[in-house]
Amino acid sequence: MQAVDIIRKKRGGNPLTAGEIHFFVGAYAAGEISDAQAAAWLMAVVWRGMSREELIALTEAMLRSGDIIDLSALPGIKVDKQSTGGVGDKTSLVVAAVAAAGDLVVPMICGRGWSYAGGTLDKLESIPGFKTELTIDEFRAALAVCGCALAGQSSILAPAEKKLYALRAATGAIESPWLICASLLSRKLAEGADALVLDVKCGAGGFMKRSEDAECLAQLLVDTAGAMGKRAVALVTDMDQPLGRAIGNALEIAECIDVLRGGGPPDLRMLSLELCGWMFYLGERTASVELGRELAAELLAGGSALQKLRSIFYQQHGDELALFERQRLPHATFREDVCSALSGYVAGIDCERLGTACALLGGGRQTMDEAIDPAVGLVLHKKIGDVVTEQEPLVTVHFNSSGRLEEVTAMVRAAFKVSNAARYVPQPLVQKVIERTAASRGRGAS
Amino acid sequence: MQAVDIIRKKRGGNPLTAGEIHFFVGAYAAGEISDAQAAAWLMAVVWRGMSREELIALTEAMLRSGDIIDLSALPGIKVDKQSTGGVGDKTSLVVAAVAAAGDLVVPMICGRGWSYAGGTLDKLESIPGFKTELTIDEFRAALAVCGCALAGQSSILAPAEKKLYALRAATGAIESPWLICASLLSRKLAEGADALVLDVKCGAGGFMKRSEDAECLAQLLVDTAGAMGKRAVALVTDMDQPLGRAIGNALEIAECIDVLRGGGPPDLRMLSLELCGWMFYLGERTASVELGRELAAELLAGGSALQKLRSIFYQQHGDELALFERQRLPHATFREDVCSALSGYVAGIDCERLGTACALLGGGRQTMDEAIDPAVGLVLHKKIGDVVTEQEPLVTVHFNSSGRLEEVTAMVRAAFKVSNAARYVPQPLVQKVIERTAASRGRGAS
Repeated sequence: MQAVDIIRKKRGGNPLTAGEIHFFVGAYAAGEISDAQAAAWLMAVVWRGMSREELIALTEAMLRSGDIIDLSALPGIKVDKQSTGGVGDKTSLVVAAVAAAGDLVVPMICGRGWSYAGGTLDKLESIPGFKTELTIDEFRAALAVCGCALAGQSSILAPAEKKLYALRAATGAIESPWLICASLLSRKLAEGADALVLDVKCGAGGFMKRSEDAECLAQLLVDTAGAMGKRAVALVTDMDQPLGRAIGNALEIAECIDVLRGGGPPDLRMLSLELCGWMFYLGERTASVELGRELAAELLAGGSALQKLRSIFYQQHGDELALFERQRLPHATFREDVCSALSGYVAGIDCERLGTACALLGGGRQTMDEAIDPAVGLVLHKKIGDVVTEQEPLVTVHFNSSGRLEEVTAMVRAAFKVSNAARYVPQPLVQKVIERTAASRGRGAS
Repeated sequence: MQAVDIIRKKRGGNPLTAGEIHFFVGAYAAGEISDAQAAAWLMAVVWRGMSREELIALTEAMLRSGDIIDLSALPGIKVDKQSTGGVGDKTSLVVAAVAAAGDLVVPMICGRGWSYAGGTLDKLESIPGFKTELTIDEFRAALAVCGCALAGQSSILAPAEKKLYALRAATGAIESPWLICASLLSRKLAEGADALVLDVKCGAGGFMKRSEDAECLAQLLVDTAGAMGKRAVALVTDMDQPLGRAIGNALEIAECIDVLRGGGPPDLRMLSLELCGWMFYLGERTASVELGRELAAELLAGGSALQKLRSIFYQQHGDELALFERQRLPHATFREDVCSALSGYVAGIDCERLGTACALLGGGRQTMDEAIDPAVGLVLHKKIGDVVTEQEPLVTVHFNSSGRLEEVTAMVRAAFKVSNAARYVPQPLVQKVIERTAASRGRGAS
């Protein structure tokens, strides 16, 4: 079997066999196929897409390139939540605390941010002392003790996925529903989850800009997870404006803590409860999603979710006092307000621009090995539909170096569209829920 | 400017600016863009194609990555012929000798074979002593002395093209009309030609399998060459069966010599005269293609083309006696006939299979740095439309090692389709002629 023949076959629009896909992924992980050949193949996959069978083979090939954590010794259904990534998208910490407080076991392997979108791992690392490099034994121990573990992708889990992801980032092959699906599921299945709640971001701040693409990805995720014996649901959620008000690693952690303390922005709180509702339902803690949502709201209101977060911090060596004293989280030296030039309503927010502005401040990366500044970022004072008057602050920029400040403030200003026309109504937060159909359920292994 | 943004732009189907294309090609040639990024970009170009402006920019970027030979000191219009490559496609040596015998100046930079298709440079190197590595001064001197020079692509001519071509071969990105066009023209324009006769092969043995693809490539070549100030015509010619009877480097040189000595297979002779007719016309030696064809036939019949070949051999240190004694060319130790299992008519010949069989014998390569055996190859006894009886030889295999002989003979046998149905008529040799339209002439620089 020659790599170039497999590339040419896919390039020509012909489906690959499972054997060809396993060979290609395995040989690439082993260093026997060059980055150049793999990059050409990935672009051919972006172009031609994949059949159901190809996608299952790709997911399995990436999954089986490493170990799979065995969590069978822990009781109950292991449930995780995974988002496709967006700007200000920070539900993971809230959801993990609420779900674990409701006695679910939540094994959560987290990813890093890239380009304009942040990553949970970077956010967690902004918490002083918080340890994200866990051995498999430490991961299992954390799950046993407090029902939740949040860790980076160790090199023994889906190493082919890790190598392919870095290559995709360098070669413009991130935004493909098939590649996102295989990548995300192989990572999640390696962590030992039995059920997955998938948050597929749709809009300018996510990797899927159009709702048909987001729905396609949601369907692929649910079908493929099902075919591999996992329970799954996908929520297509709005990413036409940032979620919550904070963009930037420590700023986002602070906002999550706010939600767990009973405050925080309503959209972040609402989406977190929605995701938890589905987790409780798939994890068989409640008989319906509705009851799951109610349970989640109770756990939040009663303070047991905050208590759970404290034990997660304790377990992973994070500074517990940071839960109560915001100044213990990294914070930037300087702040500057970006104000509106007009009066009117906020009609649109270009979140990709805001995410890029945060990256320019040092809060994000363009290549997978860049260091980032956890303290910097943006805090929004206005969201879509809000009234704004001339010279009123739209955003506060938190920064440590004024090197690219001018560029950043211009970018932030350009991201806001203020209009005098009728008040613009934001998209509903949850746009669509995709569960497995009866037909696909019949075909799957679950 | 970031490489990944340029990849993403092309991937999304958006045309690139000339500046972006020059940056990408220049940075890749300088080693500042990785093979992986270039491979992804090439596949995106294969997918999305290129506009007229993009194609001109790509051709120019590859051309300007190195030197351009200045032939202005030589009188007259410099005319070259270039084929897109096929199985048994060997007109170059015949055409060069006839055209130079008719007082054209023929600067011919030749390429190597790849996969199932041979290359003129490999064929020339099977001639004992023949020197293909010429300095620019030697190249110019050969042109001044005998009107023709045949040389390999020195590293100072279009180095970006050379690097990209090797990458395309490794990553399944050869068969793209835009990439073939830019690659071929940048090589040809670097050699200093004023006019080009382009032989676009169409059929199973060429890189363009379907006539619409071949015509598209022909049109791109003629338009782009015209826009860059060159005269050009493209002939779409049949490659549904090998040209002539010989496949393999020394075997093909012997067949060219046969034609120049007044014999050889009629299809090879006819196509060579047709190409020369166009060269004489574009080079303003004759007032029409028809008269050009007649001049070519006279030069061949009168022996002056053979005489010219002799002086080319002399100039480039090739063994002149090889023109008269076939045994002075490399020849294989063993021969074996592959015979027909049926009686009937030859209804089809899978030339890609035959080219691959020749490569398996050692006569071709899969990667650009493999050594090849000049002596081995195939000689066809039957072509499309010929009558064949059971057990009559279809092909004689010339080989030096019996290692993969069984595989080769099976492949050769499978390449012939013998049928009892009505006699199959081969495609016409020249299927279409594409000259610049008045409209495209107006837009160009010529």
